Amino acid sequence: MTAANDKPARGYADKARLVARVGKNPPAVILVEPQLGENIGTAARAMMNTGLEELRLVDPKQDWLSDKAIAASSGAERILERAKRYEKVTDAIADLHTVYASTARRREMVKPLMSAKAAALDMHSRTDLKLGILFGRERDGLHNDEVALANTIIEVPLNPEHSSMNLAQAVLIVGYEWFQAAYEGPQEMMTFNRTTPASKEMLLGLFEHLESELVICGFLRNEEKMPGMIVNIRNMLQRAELTEQEVRTFHGMVKELRYGRRPDRPKRQPGYKLDTNESSD
Amino acid sequence: MTAANDKPARGYADKARLVARVGKNPPAVILVEPQLGENIGTAARAMMNTGLEELRLVDPKQDWLSDKAIAASSGAERILERAKRYEKVTDAIADLHTVYASTARRREMVKPLMSAKAAALDMHSRTDLKLGILFGRERDGLHNDEVALANTIIEVPLNPEHSSMNLAQAVLIVGYEWFQAAYEGPQEMMTFNRTTPASKEMLLGLFEHLESELVICGFLRNEEKMPGMIVNIRNMLQRAELTEQEVRTFHGMVKELRYGRRPDRPKRQPGYKLDTNESSD
Repeated sequence: MTAANDKPARGYADKARLVARVGKNPPAVILVEPQLGENIGTAARAMMNTGLEELRLVDPKQDWLSDKAIAASSGAERILERAKRYEKVTDAIADLHTVYASTARRREMVKPLMSAKAAALDMHSRTDLKLGILFGRERDGLHNDEVALANTIIEVPLNPEHSSMNLAQAVLIVGYEWFQAAYEGPQEMMTFNRTTPASKEMLLGLFEHLESELVICGFLRNEEKMPGMIVNIRNMLQRAELTEQEVRTFHGMVKELRYGRRPDRPKRQPGYKLDTNESSD
Repeated sequence: MTAANDKPARGYADKARLVARVGKNPPAVILVEPQLGENIGTAARAMMNTGLEELRLVDPKQDWLSDKAIAASSGAERILERAKRYEKVTDAIADLHTVYASTARRREMVKPLMSAKAAALDMHSRTDLKLGILFGRERDGLHNDEVALANTIIEVPLNPEHSSMNLAQAVLIVGYEWFQAAYEGPQEMMTFNRTTPASKEMLLGLFEHLESELVICGFLRNEEKMPGMIVNIRNMLQRAELTEQEVRTFHGMVKELRYGRRPDRPKRQPGYKLDTNESSD
């Protein structure tokens, strides 16, 4: 009565326990501005249940090592002790390559949307990349500019009339699917062909370069529309899943389009290595 | 990106939401001697999340309609109001045909053991039978004589070193798998949100515009490397799966980066409609 692709339990007769092997390369769990220490604790418990280890906290509003938080973690104290605090979401994702955003509300964005299960398989296909999952505030989730930093939106298919879960439950379901997917292995993968996918830090550098030139040249001249346009441009480029070399190529294109052989061409654009002669990837 | 047995999305373009239809014949959730009204409330919330409706309570130790219980249910008050109280487990399962027992501890019993997913598929195969799932006490779960009344043991595969979940989390995972098994839609999709993906003709127009400007500005100056670089640039932009509006935005970015407020700015770039003021998508 199992799905066609479920592997039979090994040693089923010997030990009557369905134990998944813990997958390799677990994603970091990134809680954005969690309000209550207790909720950080229950999220850590859900992580421990599902084999996730690395907790990152963006500007948490309460101490995650309070007695309440530790009691709520129900034995996952180690995860709380090792948790790292970051000032901003961009800091917390800088070293990651692929970021997922867990959201309950629908967004007006052009971005891949995956069920928790599909996202879990996607994560397992990215064996050599650093992964992270953003979870939003208890009250109002992730903001649009935060979702724009993610490659993919995760939506848990639930009763559409009652789909709100608390933080720990969202972490539990996403973690549970990640843990299950360790059974099944990836259904597909991205062919990177000896190139290295760009980290979020590199990508953010490209965004900042492009956007600052778009302001200077006048494309982003309408201050009211600017935040929305930046979200759209970032979504568009996130989807391309650029490699390191492609980020360099893109920097070069922006610089050359902007300054070409003109007399006002700056000697060097700060913040990236211009490398236009090298053939990309 | 979908598993082999996933059916294609219905209304793919219209509603970018992974919505399962609630399955028929949901199993009753039977909580055996729950200690805290609050835990009955959070279990009801998890039931509502996952489309389960019928709650049965065996000798509950606190009122399931207390303010605390109702607050914890977070909108699932209807399930609490309709909950029925039973004196003994045997009373609570008398009218059922198939009973599952959710357990965390291993039992010395000869009995089928299923993962939450396998159990969910099993439930959906029993369309004309009355089904129920037993969940044990917060502190020490189900007793052996209670498990003996069940047809099948459900064990949620979790980190073997940390597999204890609270009551609501156990209900959530078992309910989630039941809900997933009713779900026929796609596991992932692109959220286009009323935008239209660009045709290849539009995309080729963008490539030609970008590449011609990259030749003029000197970025594509090495004739030998040019074909390879063009292939790389096109691959990079193909992956972004641009919408029509994004292609227009991209045309605008290229034009403005290149000419901005410069005196040599052409009146009109042929081959596309420049539309920089309109916010993209």
